[in-house]
Amino acid sequence: MIGEQYLLLPGPTPLPEQIIRAMSRSMINHRGPAFHDLLFEVTAGIRSIYQTQGEVLIYPSSGTGVMEAAVANFIAPGDQVLAVSIGVFGDRFAAIAQAFGAAVEKILVPWGKSADPQLIKERIDRDTDKRIKAVLVSHNETSTGVVNNIAAIADALGDHPALFIVDTVSGLAAHSFKMDEWRVDVAASGSQKAFMIPPGLGFLAFNQRALSIHKKINNSRFYWDVSTGLEYLQKGQTPTTPAISLFYGLQEALRMMAEEGLDNIIRRHAFYRDLIRAAVSAMGLGLLAEAEQASCSVTSVLAPQTLGANQICQTMLQQFNIVLAGGQQNLYDVIFRIGHLGYVRELDLLAILAALEMILHKMGHPVELGAGVKVAQEHILKNHSDFAG
Amino acid sequence: MIGEQYLLLPGPTPLPEQIIRAMSRSMINHRGPAFHDLLFEVTAGIRSIYQTQGEVLIYPSSGTGVMEAAVANFIAPGDQVLAVSIGVFGDRFAAIAQAFGAAVEKILVPWGKSADPQLIKERIDRDTDKRIKAVLVSHNETSTGVVNNIAAIADALGDHPALFIVDTVSGLAAHSFKMDEWRVDVAASGSQKAFMIPPGLGFLAFNQRALSIHKKINNSRFYWDVSTGLEYLQKGQTPTTPAISLFYGLQEALRMMAEEGLDNIIRRHAFYRDLIRAAVSAMGLGLLAEAEQASCSVTSVLAPQTLGANQICQTMLQQFNIVLAGGQQNLYDVIFRIGHLGYVRELDLLAILAALEMILHKMGHPVELGAGVKVAQEHILKNHSDFAG
Repeated sequence: MIGEQYLLLPGPTPLPEQIIRAMSRSMINHRGPAFHDLLFEVTAGIRSIYQTQGEVLIYPSSGTGVMEAAVANFIAPGDQVLAVSIGVFGDRFAAIAQAFGAAVEKILVPWGKSADPQLIKERIDRDTDKRIKAVLVSHNETSTGVVNNIAAIADALGDHPALFIVDTVSGLAAHSFKMDEWRVDVAASGSQKAFMIPPGLGFLAFNQRALSIHKKINNSRFYWDVSTGLEYLQKGQTPTTPAISLFYGLQEALRMMAEEGLDNIIRRHAFYRDLIRAAVSAMGLGLLAEAEQASCSVTSVLAPQTLGANQICQTMLQQFNIVLAGGQQNLYDVIFRIGHLGYVRELDLLAILAALEMILHKMGHPVELGAGVKVAQEHILKNHSDFAG
Repeated sequence: MIGEQYLLLPGPTPLPEQIIRAMSRSMINHRGPAFHDLLFEVTAGIRSIYQTQGEVLIYPSSGTGVMEAAVANFIAPGDQVLAVSIGVFGDRFAAIAQAFGAAVEKILVPWGKSADPQLIKERIDRDTDKRIKAVLVSHNETSTGVVNNIAAIADALGDHPALFIVDTVSGLAAHSFKMDEWRVDVAASGSQKAFMIPPGLGFLAFNQRALSIHKKINNSRFYWDVSTGLEYLQKGQTPTTPAISLFYGLQEALRMMAEEGLDNIIRRHAFYRDLIRAAVSAMGLGLLAEAEQASCSVTSVLAPQTLGANQICQTMLQQFNIVLAGGQQNLYDVIFRIGHLGYVRELDLLAILAALEMILHKMGHPVELGAGVKVAQEHILKNHSDFAG
């Protein structure tokens, strides 16, 4: 089949051509002045996306790597940790804390739902002797397409001294993330999501409160050690060799993002979400997440019980070269996920919705051809006139 | 100044244009069939470079990351570890083991020398109750330009049951590394060295003996856990999102390397080393390493005492856009290092040697213009006739 693939995963995402070109530049000395300037520029850029005055360090790693960095730096073995899990990545955060010796207590939320801040508040209120040292929460849960209300969870934590540590790997820049305003102490994110660059860079943000706790505690850490990272950052360097080509991509991405404006980027992702949700609903398909908890990065669609989600994904790939994600673990073959992160064109969304209608039609699911597309068109027209007005 | 920079670091190295083009391809689903095939191809390729039938896992990380992986997976807290250090990276390996709870005993070798296998043998022979659980050694020490004799150290270890763990980040594919023949249990390497691709991938190799020890011991690990890595590899996947663009580069690099042939690649690096050493000697400059201990990746040159190494590096950069590395720690301003790793053209070496002569001449160091270049030319001619013959 001719033509580029439609990649609609919750990461990695399509890459803008200008980012690919930027990444094609020659290697430079990572201990020299050119890298120094590059590192300062992108660190400042990531800081502005996190909406923080705190520190940001960039690692050669996947998102999971900086989740491990968040644990190894800010949690000591034996620390009591409250891990709020709403899916695969919430479970992963808890597993990392456990692997690094924390005594992990999990709040398990049914998959497809967001965490109830009231439940967290009740648990925190019971911790009268402040034994809980850290609370781990996912901002956006990729496996279910559900977003947690981080501001409300921050309120639930009140003035409890536990560090508030958030995985926003697939949330950052698709949703607003007001790190300082929401009193998040530590946050982890990665390059292959709303940043529109390939996987391989992790972004760890933390404030002075977290840093002072880091200095008092120990855990098994060398590669992730933020003290070393900050020491090198002062010199315009990284402790170990940085992934230079991805830094070039990040620099270009942050310039594109600054031009578009963070508010516009976040509004654009909400628009994708609303468009997709309305269109698949018009096709008679169910949605896993309720509207007010739905992710702006990825939408989980319930497959018709007669079809199976995996068959839909496979047929979309074979017939139209469209890559969707399936469900994981207990959502395997139950949902398929449409990623709408980063560099997504609105007309591509129309195309994949039209393809989905055709596939469902051919598979015998009752769907009116064009019904979902029409709803999406209406969304686009309204969005254009909103911007024109 | 027009023209591309001459990058002569011990990593990152110049990139072949075909590798840059390979890395420019679009993102794909890292849980899909195309990545599956890519992962199997490059894993097999890395295995052949390591000359091992053992396991290889590829991480999104720098070289230091897989050194941490070697420690976190195969050394338990409290384990007695013998760390043989001949420079900065030997010290780093010991520091990582210490950070992960090992009781580290260091054998410190004067910088510029390789480790004496006899000394290691004596220490190992004294360990009659086999308390030493692992021996950490650098293959090629980037900070000094010295290579250790891994085969001889393996003989020194004899049948002692300690795991033999080698950092060959800057050694692999520049020097021969016969992992199985030399009974190396665990080896760490990275992408930005002889592989001619940008930094960001780490390669961890290990045998069944190491794996069986891994399964019996615990340490703080999640990101680096080789059990998880092997489990995903069976499915043609990685546990966390892989650095896809660097995988494209790695695939192309391994194809280029297979075409050239590993023996030829290693011979080529030895030729670079011999050429550089002969030429700088002809300029009247000293060499830190003795011939039989000298690295094929990087050559440490002693600056004339009247000049200072850093001034030579700065002037080479300013006058001719040539990037050399300085010395680190107690070799700071004492040596400069010429990297000759990976994608290096022999005529580029002539050019930088000519530049060095001119710089030394301008700085007042007595050097006959052309003296070093002539020696290098003779090396090239001899090499060509060797190949023609």
